Amino acid sequence: MSQEADMTNPEPQLWERRSSEPGEDFKIFKVRRDVCRHPRTGEDFDRVVLEAADWVTVLPVTPEGEVLMVRQFRFGVSEVTIEVPAGLVDEGEEPLAAAIRELREETGYTSERWTSLGRTFGNPAFLSNRCHLFMASDARLTHPRDLDPGEDISFQTVPLETARDWVLGGQIEHPTTIAALARVIPLCEPRSS
Amino acid sequence: MSQEADMTNPEPQLWERRSSEPGEDFKIFKVRRDVCRHPRTGEDFDRVVLEAADWVTVLPVTPEGEVLMVRQFRFGVSEVTIEVPAGLVDEGEEPLAAAIRELREETGYTSERWTSLGRTFGNPAFLSNRCHLFMASDARLTHPRDLDPGEDISFQTVPLETARDWVLGGQIEHPTTIAALARVIPLCEPRSS
Repeated sequence: MSQEADMTNPEPQLWERRSSEPGEDFKIFKVRRDVCRHPRTGEDFDRVVLEAADWVTVLPVTPEGEVLMVRQFRFGVSEVTIEVPAGLVDEGEEPLAAAIRELREETGYTSERWTSLGRTFGNPAFLSNRCHLFMASDARLTHPRDLDPGEDISFQTVPLETARDWVLGGQIEHPTTIAALARVIPLCEPRSS
Repeated sequence: MSQEADMTNPEPQLWERRSSEPGEDFKIFKVRRDVCRHPRTGEDFDRVVLEAADWVTVLPVTPEGEVLMVRQFRFGVSEVTIEVPAGLVDEGEEPLAAAIRELREETGYTSERWTSLGRTFGNPAFLSNRCHLFMASDARLTHPRDLDPGEDISFQTVPLETARDWVLGGQIEHPTTIAALARVIPLCEPRSS
């Protein structure tokens, strides 16, 4: 690796948390107010952290090689989005168990072949959690769905190439869906240079 | 596309926002409390939305074909992370202008060749914003950096193959960094089936 090593580029250090105060609990996350000390200057800064349960994102692939996607109204953006099944890890639950549960609840599909596709941060700037990515191979419709009263989700299977086209065309904008798809198919366009 | 069309899989509709109340302003986002009506059942649900400015994520590639990455302490996860340069779009600012500004402020690098790599949601479940992805080709160190007092960022260039290995190995867990890299290099591993 070609590190730019000079005096203006020192390696970042950990910041000391001087104090930490719980804020409002919004259920999907809890506010925490920290005061953190800059390790180089000693100056204190207020920082807001959202403590959140981990998430899971599941890329289900059918025996025909199609990916199972879900559509739902998302309250953050007030739009119907295209994503793969995803959800929260319950307290005490293993990420894989949450992935298996969310896939079945949202779509009725199950799989006997699960593979980890790694994990991502939620957003390391202000969220404490991670998102665990899984592929569910040979996924088949085997059960009735079990949607919460506050959910309204449809599902459809599309060829992996269509999913790729939807990332490139902007129909898929869900970051962890993109991160999971990227681990299974190339999402880059041919470049001229 | 092979839509599973049956009576248990109706297409999701938009939810009507019955009321909306501003909550606390945390600067990087503002809380909004909505009551939304389920379009199929008519039941009302409380939903929390974080109204946030859009973000930008910049994938800078040097004339040598290396990617410029940054390391910084991230308060959400209390770790030093590896990402590409990123930041908030200021009010009234174009996303590309924010990308150019953030790259120069965080690293001192500039580029004459900018390409859109699309955009992602922040998180459509509860964040209102989007992240705009850009590639900055032929990026070169041309200026002194301009870090905020609350920032402590180092930079380094690494071959694109190293960046890919860091995604696969888990050293890079930043979702929009992964989304941007995925648009430029394949991030998938060879699969046995």
